[in-house]
Amino acid sequence: MRPSLQVDENGRLKHFLSTEGLSAPILTQILDTAESFVGVGERAVKKVPLLRGKTIVNLFFEPSTRTRTTFELAAKRLSADLLTINIAASSASKGESLLDTLRNLESMHCDMFVVRHPESGAAHFIAQHAAPHVSVLNAGDGRHAHPTQALLDMFTIRRLRGDFTRLRVAIVGDILHSRVARSEIHALTTLGAAEIRVVAPRTLVPAQVEGLGVRVFHDMQSGLKDVDVIVMLRLQKERMQGGLLPSEHEYFRFYGLTRERLALARPDALVMHPGPLNRGVEIASDVADGPSSVILQQVGYGIAVRMAVMSIILGSHAAGTAGGAH
Amino acid sequence: MRPSLQVDENGRLKHFLSTEGLSAPILTQILDTAESFVGVGERAVKKVPLLRGKTIVNLFFEPSTRTRTTFELAAKRLSADLLTINIAASSASKGESLLDTLRNLESMHCDMFVVRHPESGAAHFIAQHAAPHVSVLNAGDGRHAHPTQALLDMFTIRRLRGDFTRLRVAIVGDILHSRVARSEIHALTTLGAAEIRVVAPRTLVPAQVEGLGVRVFHDMQSGLKDVDVIVMLRLQKERMQGGLLPSEHEYFRFYGLTRERLALARPDALVMHPGPLNRGVEIASDVADGPSSVILQQVGYGIAVRMAVMSIILGSHAAGTAGGAH
Amino acid sequence: MRPSLQVDENGRLKHFLSTEGLSAPILTQILDTAESFVGVGERAVKKVPLLRGKTIVNLFFEPSTRTRTTFELAAKRLSADLLTINIAASSASKGESLLDTLRNLESMHCDMFVVRHPESGAAHFIAQHAAPHVSVLNAGDGRHAHPTQALLDMFTIRRLRGDFTRLRVAIVGDILHSRVARSEIHALTTLGAAEIRVVAPRTLVPAQVEGLGVRVFHDMQSGLKDVDVIVMLRLQKERMQGGLLPSEHEYFRFYGLTRERLALARPDALVMHPGPLNRGVEIASDVADGPSSVILQQVGYGIAVRMAVMSIILGSHAAGTAGGAH
Repeated sequence: MRPSLQVDENGRLKHFLSTEGLSAPILTQILDTAESFVGVGERAVKKVPLLRGKTIVNLFFEPSTRTRTTFELAAKRLSADLLTINIAASSASKGESLLDTLRNLESMHCDMFVVRHPESGAAHFIAQHAAPHVSVLNAGDGRHAHPTQALLDMFTIRRLRGDFTRLRVAIVGDILHSRVARSEIHALTTLGAAEIRVVAPRTLVPAQVEGLGVRVFHDMQSGLKDVDVIVMLRLQKERMQGGLLPSEHEYFRFYGLTRERLALARPDALVMHPGPLNRGVEIASDVADGPSSVILQQVGYGIAVRMAVMSIILGSHAAGTAGGAH
Repeated sequence: MRPSLQVDENGRLKHFLSTEGLSAPILTQILDTAESFVGVGERAVKKVPLLRGKTIVNLFFEPSTRTRTTFELAAKRLSADLLTINIAASSASKGESLLDTLRNLESMHCDMFVVRHPESGAAHFIAQHAAPHVSVLNAGDGRHAHPTQALLDMFTIRRLRGDFTRLRVAIVGDILHSRVARSEIHALTTLGAAEIRVVAPRTLVPAQVEGLGVRVFHDMQSGLKDVDVIVMLRLQKERMQGGLLPSEHEYFRFYGLTRERLALARPDALVMHPGPLNRGVEIASDVADGPSSVILQQVGYGIAVRMAVMSIILGSHAAGTAGGAH
Repeated sequence: MRPSLQVDENGRLKHFLSTEGLSAPILTQILDTAESFVGVGERAVKKVPLLRGKTIVNLFFEPSTRTRTTFELAAKRLSADLLTINIAASSASKGESLLDTLRNLESMHCDMFVVRHPESGAAHFIAQHAAPHVSVLNAGDGRHAHPTQALLDMFTIRRLRGDFTRLRVAIVGDILHSRVARSEIHALTTLGAAEIRVVAPRTLVPAQVEGLGVRVFHDMQSGLKDVDVIVMLRLQKERMQGGLLPSEHEYFRFYGLTRERLALARPDALVMHPGPLNRGVEIASDVADGPSSVILQQVGYGIAVRMAVMSIILGSHAAGTAGGAH
């Protein structure tokens, strides 16, 4: 993967495919821009005219109402025109190739593809073959990356705790199957987190993970000790093959986040989760709804982060105008 | 059901769940506001900027293209941003709970949920658990209520016949399974209709219906005599369990609205139907298309009434601006 | 089919159902108007306010993501409000008749129906029964017509080659099942093309085709000789009944467009195709992607042509304002 695929010759963000390979200044630019959009969602008129007349295409190769909704809202609040195309249900049945579908959409002067795909690397492939006027935003590809989810977590942490260099962050759960975990580790590393831990059963940790600079723990007692942020992962039941885990009940017994285990972390620790929640599987309900949980704030910040990435890439963002409703 | 769930401490409409428990002044405010929107649909530019920058979510737990379309049009003509979320086909498959779905949408700063649900009471449940900044509009819940349909009928009657206190209204058909009938009876009562009749076979009349102040008839001859308005209900074939009715043909023979039966009503009687029509089952085609029928006017007024409820609830309605295209 | 169904008493386009029966001045008006929209797709703000406040309904009786997308984009770039209604999946299940569905949409003050239907003649039927304020745009009906596809081909030819009266055009492939071929032949005839050829196996040529003024060829060698434009048709595999063709491989051997066969045409010949491509069936990949191919330009021009038809029919088009973004 060439890092330069995401950044153009002038150092500007062209595609947003992965947190891997993006510099701290670019990640920080996204977070700063998102800051200017947080207020938009709280105004009477939740809309800015920045992307008026731009065409953004939700190109979904696997269904995800939740993810589709967040990008649709972000596009609409930037005043862009949005098309949603479910590829599985459309041209595939007429046998058109993926590249022909892309060429067609490009010829219709679409400006951005938001790509969701069950296969790792799909968003990179599409970006490599896209026309020069088109940008690609990865909305989740297989086990590989989910960079807007990672950045909204970074945004949440920075907004609520400030400086990354003092923070210990634990990512807990199914690291092996999680595109979120991978994207988080890269982002936290780039932003200079003091310590990144992964906490998971041996069967759910990828072989090479220590090479990424993380500390690996197999029990919650030591893994959560004194951390500032706990990122719980969703147990991707639909992705797990038999034999990796004994049962959901067993999983919760060893790796579920309970109030007792939360008490091992620092008193002001944040509890995060990308959703949707499996209550009683990876997280106890009273923790998910408790005072340490910032899970719902994350959702709101997620719209601001997606607006930031869209507006930076489509080149219309000017810090001075983002705040001006219209 | 607390009446106060629909109205806030200042007496303003907060949720619109049922015609039951709403006062005559509130129902009249909706009808008056709708009056100001009737003209919007007939202008060259069928759009007003009242709800620009508001986010309205069509939250449909059962499919209904027809109902979805009317709310979508109403929202777009008010310049709101609209999301459509089909719950059965989305997060349910990932096991997310209804309340978690709601919390997520609230965190994205959605302003209104238009809820369609196969179970009675679902819209109330959602309103009870919604965040303070979110309003709920019931677009039909099980057998319970369909208040915008009832109010568009009230609007049609008032516009074409004026004063309710002189009117005899007959509601004909499957009262037992009809959320429309229930909502109509409450609205007509509140608005002071002179007489409300229900006309149905014994098997399709709910046990307690006379307690609502209606007169019950089991034959069309006496039921339609001298009425000013006839509201035909759709025979909800998909909701009926075996044994309640002999056959559609039999039903039409006893309860179908024919020209002969229509002649029993007053000469200027209005014929109404919520649609979609079962021609030849509950209504003869020549009556549905005849001079007494106002069925299609109802559809157009329905957009105006939905615009009225949305704009009153979202607090932007000012009588002086509704008429100003932009 | 009365020609007057498409044109009103003042000679203005009312419905766009077929290229058959439309005069050269009307076809030329559409092409001229499309010319003014080509630039819109290339601007930073790809949007003009011409149809603001108009309601356009995509009424699709068979799925076609590709066609739906082009009309949706055209409507949005004209600032119209767009509804998409998939009829098979909606009211049909509640047994509502087509005409009742239309009456309902008309009562909601919709301005235009874009109709896609598997049966020939469906768009005409709907136009015949539509209310006076509603226009119908045929987006493909059975084997009958696909007039916007034909006009975008005319637009492409005119833009790249100018005067029709000097041009020889060959239409190659499954003429029998192609609504595109039928619409092209009428348009080319009206616009005065010097020679129209169809090239196809005997089993895929309709019996009466010579009556339309075309020359029929059954081999590529003579059919492509010295032509200026080659319109390849998609092999409609899903429409073909057994026995008309031996195999895809066999078809390509005799009727596929290869570089060798393209060399029979004039050196500057254009290669066109309505998409989606069956690469290696009706066209070789190196020809589809080669220097003579204008297949992707066609797609972009298609948006401009659809914008032209919509804006002419809905009566808001003024040549002087189309260029003004807003």
